[in-house]
Amino acid sequence: MKEKSLALHEANKGKIEVVSKVSTNTREDLSLAYSPGVAFPCLEIKENKENVYKYTSKGNLIAVVSDGTAVLGLGDIGPLAGLPVMEGKAILFKNFGGVDAFPICLDTKDPDEIISICKAIAPTFGGINLEDISSPRCFYIEKTLKKELDIPVFHDDQHGTAIVVLAALKNACRLLAREFCDLKVVVNGPGAAGTSIIKLLHLNGIKNIVACDKDGVLYKERENLTLHKEDLCEITNPGHIRGDLKDAMIGADVFIGVSVADCVTEDMIKSMNQDPIIFAMANPNPEITYDKAKAAGAKIVGTGRSDFPNQINNVLVFPGLFKGALAAKCKITEEIKVAAADAISSLVTDDELSEEYIIPNPLDPRVAETVAKFILEAVGKPYGI
Amino acid sequence: MKEKSLALHEANKGKIEVVSKVSTNTREDLSLAYSPGVAFPCLEIKENKENVYKYTSKGNLIAVVSDGTAVLGLGDIGPLAGLPVMEGKAILFKNFGGVDAFPICLDTKDPDEIISICKAIAPTFGGINLEDISSPRCFYIEKTLKKELDIPVFHDDQHGTAIVVLAALKNACRLLAREFCDLKVVVNGPGAAGTSIIKLLHLNGIKNIVACDKDGVLYKERENLTLHKEDLCEITNPGHIRGDLKDAMIGADVFIGVSVADCVTEDMIKSMNQDPIIFAMANPNPEITYDKAKAAGAKIVGTGRSDFPNQINNVLVFPGLFKGALAAKCKITEEIKVAAADAISSLVTDDELSEEYIIPNPLDPRVAETVAKFILEAVGKPYGI
Repeated sequence: MKEKSLALHEANKGKIEVVSKVSTNTREDLSLAYSPGVAFPCLEIKENKENVYKYTSKGNLIAVVSDGTAVLGLGDIGPLAGLPVMEGKAILFKNFGGVDAFPICLDTKDPDEIISICKAIAPTFGGINLEDISSPRCFYIEKTLKKELDIPVFHDDQHGTAIVVLAALKNACRLLAREFCDLKVVVNGPGAAGTSIIKLLHLNGIKNIVACDKDGVLYKERENLTLHKEDLCEITNPGHIRGDLKDAMIGADVFIGVSVADCVTEDMIKSMNQDPIIFAMANPNPEITYDKAKAAGAKIVGTGRSDFPNQINNVLVFPGLFKGALAAKCKITEEIKVAAADAISSLVTDDELSEEYIIPNPLDPRVAETVAKFILEAVGKPYGI
Repeated sequence: MKEKSLALHEANKGKIEVVSKVSTNTREDLSLAYSPGVAFPCLEIKENKENVYKYTSKGNLIAVVSDGTAVLGLGDIGPLAGLPVMEGKAILFKNFGGVDAFPICLDTKDPDEIISICKAIAPTFGGINLEDISSPRCFYIEKTLKKELDIPVFHDDQHGTAIVVLAALKNACRLLAREFCDLKVVVNGPGAAGTSIIKLLHLNGIKNIVACDKDGVLYKERENLTLHKEDLCEITNPGHIRGDLKDAMIGADVFIGVSVADCVTEDMIKSMNQDPIIFAMANPNPEITYDKAKAAGAKIVGTGRSDFPNQINNVLVFPGLFKGALAAKCKITEEIKVAAADAISSLVTDDELSEEYIIPNPLDPRVAETVAKFILEAVGKPYGI
């Protein structure tokens, strides 16, 4: 794979290209698309800012902003080395959702500077997708930008995964005829994704969530908790459990891993409630392999891998989410996230639903369109405008 | 033209699009262009920063950065209203030079903030084209960025025009068998473009340049000169002329206007030296019309207009200039500017050269390629790599 990937990137000199939607072959073309004719759309926008959505590419264009501090599983590799990922993200936005996306890799790690740069470059863009920014800095950056900008802002590493997990878990409940709100859930790895998963599941009615980090179960009295883990203690661990991941998993219905490879054993699966649901999403190697989890009695298993059933993949979310939010000109609220999850769930019919098919294939061409449609309906706009 | 231009912009929802150079149709495509395969180019770049030019789009990608403070002749219309111009510039880079260019419209006018943002977003880009930033702020911003960034930085409003003027003036001298360095030149309007014209002509050997602003001739002892006009006095007005534009033009060989419509009369042309050369570039209406200038005895007349001969148009410069600088990975030095001017001059052969054809047509498809070739030769790299 290494040779193939390097060859692909080198042959094309990267993955994105900025092309013209209009012709500039004649003097008249030039005079309309550039000087002097271009002055007219400029003046219309000066007159009424909303016209920027009518006469420019802003309305379908997002920035993929990263500081390169948490790239894939590679960590803080910097903005230059993060560029191939951001270009990759940009082409997925375009190829899956028809959304123009442009990588902005920032040579600064200062959260306040990242915020002020995003605000300053916002005029060009209809939305901002934050990407691969390390936790807990990402929480502050996203929260501030959501408050201070009038365009949708979304940190995919947090909420993309959370939305797919919500979709998958709802469908698992549908298949197994379980009550969603009664599930006992263990989330291992309360970083960017884990934190958003916990919050979204809690908001959707799950009361019994236990969060674990590498030092074990989170509880209020634990020493040296960071601020965002303290916050998580407010909505997790109602049973006041202490101990490690192994202790937390005893009697649980669901294990959700956004942590590290091989941290879950077959015995831990066996200690769970009957027919447990396992989403082991560490990449590239999951917390427990699909086969081991099944062998230990897991009823439904999802991983981040494309070579096993039930791939929990963000690409199910972000292209359609921004397609919808840009069309609706709405911010990304909790309601929007739930609408996106419901859209994804809805693409698996009762007839299709099985232990090996609880979420659609990431390559399913209906996904982005459907997610966008559900979002437009959620904000009260008919689809198609 | 208004209706046509608005219709063009609205029908296409802007003028730029970000497209994918690689396919993402299959699981294998995805695994090479995105996770997990994308980790390999990331790691190669982490190992050696230069690899970013091998595996990403950076090497052929520039930012068109503006704060919207001096857009066309419209003035400070802001970053949103400036966006159609920056998109227009971006498509000219692509359509004329094959250079990917992306508009960055900044919601700040603070020169230091503009500088720090350009530095922070630089990892994505192979070069930065500053655009429509008001004078004299533009001088400080460009100078600082040129010093502090390792990629080419170019303020087109300053140097683009200056380079075409140099090319046109050299060809006028070739046609009229005049000695370039002996020309007596009046430059009216020492803003962004005028200042760069004066500096570039001076650097190329013209000793007798007189600069005028709306208050008349610039001279050292004049009161209330801004810093950059004080600097201009160091290299202009060797004859210690006082007075207004009319006084300055008496006996001059060349008038170069980057100022306002109709500020030059036929009498002023008649007061010049024999067979004067007039570049009246105020847009859309020149300092004196082509026909009036000719009627008053001007030998060669150039304007900014496409409907008269000798259009002095920046598009002759910027696509090829960045095409060459990106290929050579060089900064924009005075040598590079001269190479670009020489390239443009060279495209008019002795046989073709006439009073009505001293510079190539902006739509001449050879221009960008030739400018890039001359730049690569100037920095000692053979063309084609």
